[in-house]
Amino acid sequence: MYSCIGPLGQGVANAVGLALAEKHLAARYNKPDCEVVDHYTYVILGDGCQMEGIANEASSLAAHWGLGKLIAFYDDNHISIDGNTEIAFSESVDARFEGLGWHVIWVKNGNTGYEEIRAAIEEAKAVKDKPTLIKVTTTIGYGSPNKANSYSVHGSALGAKEVEATRKSLSWPHEPFHVPEDVKKHWSRHVPDGAALEAEWNAKFAEYEKKYPEKAAELKSIITGELPAGWEKALPTYTPEAPADATRNLSQQNLNALAKVLPGLLGGSADLASSNMTLLKMFGDFQKSTPEERNVRFGVREHGMGAICNGIACHTPGLIPYCATFFVFTDYMRAAMRISALSEARVIYVMTHDSIGLGEDGPTHQPIEHLASFRAMPNILMLRPADGNETAGAYKVAVLNRKRPSVLALSRQKLPQLAGTSIEGVEKGGYIISDNSSSNKPDVILIGTGSELEIAVKAADELRKEGKAVRVVSFVSWELFDEQSNDYKESVLPSAVTARVSIEAGSTFGWEKIVGVKGKAIGIDGFGASAPAGKIYKEFGITMEAVVAAAKEVS
Amino acid sequence: MYSCIGPLGQGVANAVGLALAEKHLAARYNKPDCEVVDHYTYVILGDGCQMEGIANEASSLAAHWGLGKLIAFYDDNHISIDGNTEIAFSESVDARFEGLGWHVIWVKNGNTGYEEIRAAIEEAKAVKDKPTLIKVTTTIGYGSPNKANSYSVHGSALGAKEVEATRKSLSWPHEPFHVPEDVKKHWSRHVPDGAALEAEWNAKFAEYEKKYPEKAAELKSIITGELPAGWEKALPTYTPEAPADATRNLSQQNLNALAKVLPGLLGGSADLASSNMTLLKMFGDFQKSTPEERNVRFGVREHGMGAICNGIACHTPGLIPYCATFFVFTDYMRAAMRISALSEARVIYVMTHDSIGLGEDGPTHQPIEHLASFRAMPNILMLRPADGNETAGAYKVAVLNRKRPSVLALSRQKLPQLAGTSIEGVEKGGYIISDNSSSNKPDVILIGTGSELEIAVKAADELRKEGKAVRVVSFVSWELFDEQSNDYKESVLPSAVTARVSIEAGSTFGWEKIVGVKGKAIGIDGFGASAPAGKIYKEFGITMEAVVAAAKEVS
Repeated sequence: MYSCIGPLGQGVANAVGLALAEKHLAARYNKPDCEVVDHYTYVILGDGCQMEGIANEASSLAAHWGLGKLIAFYDDNHISIDGNTEIAFSESVDARFEGLGWHVIWVKNGNTGYEEIRAAIEEAKAVKDKPTLIKVTTTIGYGSPNKANSYSVHGSALGAKEVEATRKSLSWPHEPFHVPEDVKKHWSRHVPDGAALEAEWNAKFAEYEKKYPEKAAELKSIITGELPAGWEKALPTYTPEAPADATRNLSQQNLNALAKVLPGLLGGSADLASSNMTLLKMFGDFQKSTPEERNVRFGVREHGMGAICNGIACHTPGLIPYCATFFVFTDYMRAAMRISALSEARVIYVMTHDSIGLGEDGPTHQPIEHLASFRAMPNILMLRPADGNETAGAYKVAVLNRKRPSVLALSRQKLPQLAGTSIEGVEKGGYIISDNSSSNKPDVILIGTGSELEIAVKAADELRKEGKAVRVVSFVSWELFDEQSNDYKESVLPSAVTARVSIEAGSTFGWEKIVGVKGKAIGIDGFGASAPAGKIYKEFGITMEAVVAAAKEVS
Repeated sequence: MYSCIGPLGQGVANAVGLALAEKHLAARYNKPDCEVVDHYTYVILGDGCQMEGIANEASSLAAHWGLGKLIAFYDDNHISIDGNTEIAFSESVDARFEGLGWHVIWVKNGNTGYEEIRAAIEEAKAVKDKPTLIKVTTTIGYGSPNKANSYSVHGSALGAKEVEATRKSLSWPHEPFHVPEDVKKHWSRHVPDGAALEAEWNAKFAEYEKKYPEKAAELKSIITGELPAGWEKALPTYTPEAPADATRNLSQQNLNALAKVLPGLLGGSADLASSNMTLLKMFGDFQKSTPEERNVRFGVREHGMGAICNGIACHTPGLIPYCATFFVFTDYMRAAMRISALSEARVIYVMTHDSIGLGEDGPTHQPIEHLASFRAMPNILMLRPADGNETAGAYKVAVLNRKRPSVLALSRQKLPQLAGTSIEGVEKGGYIISDNSSSNKPDVILIGTGSELEIAVKAADELRKEGKAVRVVSFVSWELFDEQSNDYKESVLPSAVTARVSIEAGSTFGWEKIVGVKGKAIGIDGFGASAPAGKIYKEFGITMEAVVAAAKEVS
């Protein structure tokens, strides 16, 4: 099992993802005579986690999905950084969890009540249709005579004097870091026990492989994370004659094509499946009684969704979770997305309605600064494909980047299939889709991403009619372009050509890096507006005419 | 009352903020013989809002604070965009809210049970120590024979044919937009009723003004939002001889100075008051039984905190809410911060521990891309002061920007009081703090923000020793600098001087705009690390030596 890092409530959601993964894989691969997937998921959470909204989101889903093998220990110590939790937290956590549908057990003496804790775990295991919350009432800093039960043991060391006093009060005579023989002996039993369990599982799996060779091969590929040979041939490609379509629809074609060849692909949307176009048509819903299915219904819980996907991705290398909402609502799940990046978790974020082009829903729903904000985030790939080939390229990149999450920004509105776009181009991040210049010296370079690449193409046509040598560059992923060789970069954006115009229906923040001080970035630096897409584009000057005018200005 | 916009659960938290504001102002200004602040706060929320974590965070606080005049109608229609909510939402909302400490009422016939609804409101008003959730079970699209009780009435119009059928089923014979006489007459009564209520309140306030002139003047200033004359004189200033201090501590000096002169200033932290340094020392905690106090304890609920502050800011123009957490955890509350910007709500975001300089907590706690991500967001001021004078300047700007939220990025670590910094400088966003060149032609311009301005100053000293003409620019707010005249900008960053080096312990994303293609931006584009601050700065090359070397390279 890989490690996930979840601060401030995210750990609860990570655990729900781990338990979901177990339930899903068990349902798909276990046979009555051979249960090869079978484990509990334990999570320890504190008062602070309980206050965080994400923990409530994930806990609601855990009960809905009937994750009976999820056991949460709630360290009920009544202390957080600001002191006693009574200053901000007076709800009944027990009643809330019962309302959410959990089985709740209260261990009143969490400091020394080992038998009570063992009994609670046994009880939790016996409840198979619900997750269990074991509320364990403890004293923070137990044993420290002067600092126990206070915030001063939350984030700081005890200090030499108090360590001394604590040793005395706990009758602990040993030197620091000394492990007494009897303790060592007691714990060392886990080494042979663990080895025996591993041998037992290996034998079981060998039997499984003999009886169910196909299933075993598939499960093995999920466990190792090895992609099936030739999987990328499933990616659809498009000619310019193919019908115009929204990249959110093209994304669904990719997801459905990939689900056939990638056994670990599963995911869903935060109550926008029919807008995000994320349903896998050959599968049903992952639910309490149908956990073998691969469409996950997250409800309106973006933050929980992201962190649950982190848990799934960290459970087994071959599981490839995707999740979806409107691009602007990445704001609700940004903390989980950053943890994807930091944990090197391959989560695919399918983010549709990626600009003012979504139209009437207006500025609360129209992303502006979001592309820039993810381009600035470390170890995450921000991809904004322009058409079918680029959407396929974005999925290829997302699947191949095993240690990096990807964000796909996709359009609500229809876009034409453009000449010159390709999967290979996307893999380089930025590439030339058309050029009528020679010797790497165009008069002007027009750079577009996503839905605005079409506008750049039209502007180029117009400028070429007037005799200009124009290059059009698709800049689908800044991060991937940054990783190319200097020679390649120079072949796309020659430093001698300072006449550059970029167009993107989003913040221009950061574009100076690409267009330089002499270039011009066309974009939107204020909030959007509510109107049909065409009208908003005109209103905000995201037009072919604006690109032509800017190109003449800079060249 | 101003308008707040709260999608996806934020409206619940906005309402909690409105109800908090009422309870607080009522406690401070009402007299037993003259209650000038007295209103209920009503909020309507749907199934989707109930799934969102932020709604649970805010609802937990509403009960904790005993907001008895908050009445929430939960439109329990079982339909969200993806269809019947049973696919993702099977908890007992009633039990959860009872666990949170709310009074819960169930109106079973929300379609036509007007008397039941009226009775529920009366019951809710009678419960004075708890907020009330009125669960109103309804049929979405009630009256539409073919689309009622389905997701197809959530986000789309009925269409002409179904409108016709609905008219028939509801026996509504009138033309579109026609208001029948009896309906008009019934509703028109609110015009004289409202005028009478207003006159009544005006008379009450006139009496209050006579009896309690000082209180009345203060309340009036909160209602109008007019700042007391000379308030800005309360801002502390510092000389270079003043002791080094963390800007989070300097921030607390400002907050405490301002609380004395700004009666509408109130706020707090998400369980980090003693780290964010946000306690107002002359006030106690805003709690159920002490609502007149001004320190708000939000618990570990960043998202709820931000949206509650939006509600406070939108309640009354003179209320100035501030809220605090570590800068990296803006990721948890970013959606609320964007709504501050979109709603033009003056919320002051006090964000401490603003870089790798926080040290041992490591990369989960170290912001990298956050400065860039807010610089890209419309209508929000990102301020990163370097010392005491700049912190005071940041507060001056934050208070004066009535239609814009401000984010203050503040250091955990001590910083010296620098020569040349000033409140006036901060108001311009970027300004020269030292320069040994003449005729606006330095050999090199060093640009720093926040904790790295000190490094730029030291590098300048070093370069000047070698005979260089060096300008040091503090770039505390990009947005404010952008708003200056071209002449002013040219006087600070002359276009002829392309030798520029910036230093900031964060992502370099966007800095090309300031340093140009020939300049150099020193920063950190990957995740941080866990170690003492000094060691991390060295490790990541955020050093005086790096600035000196870069300056030599570019000049």
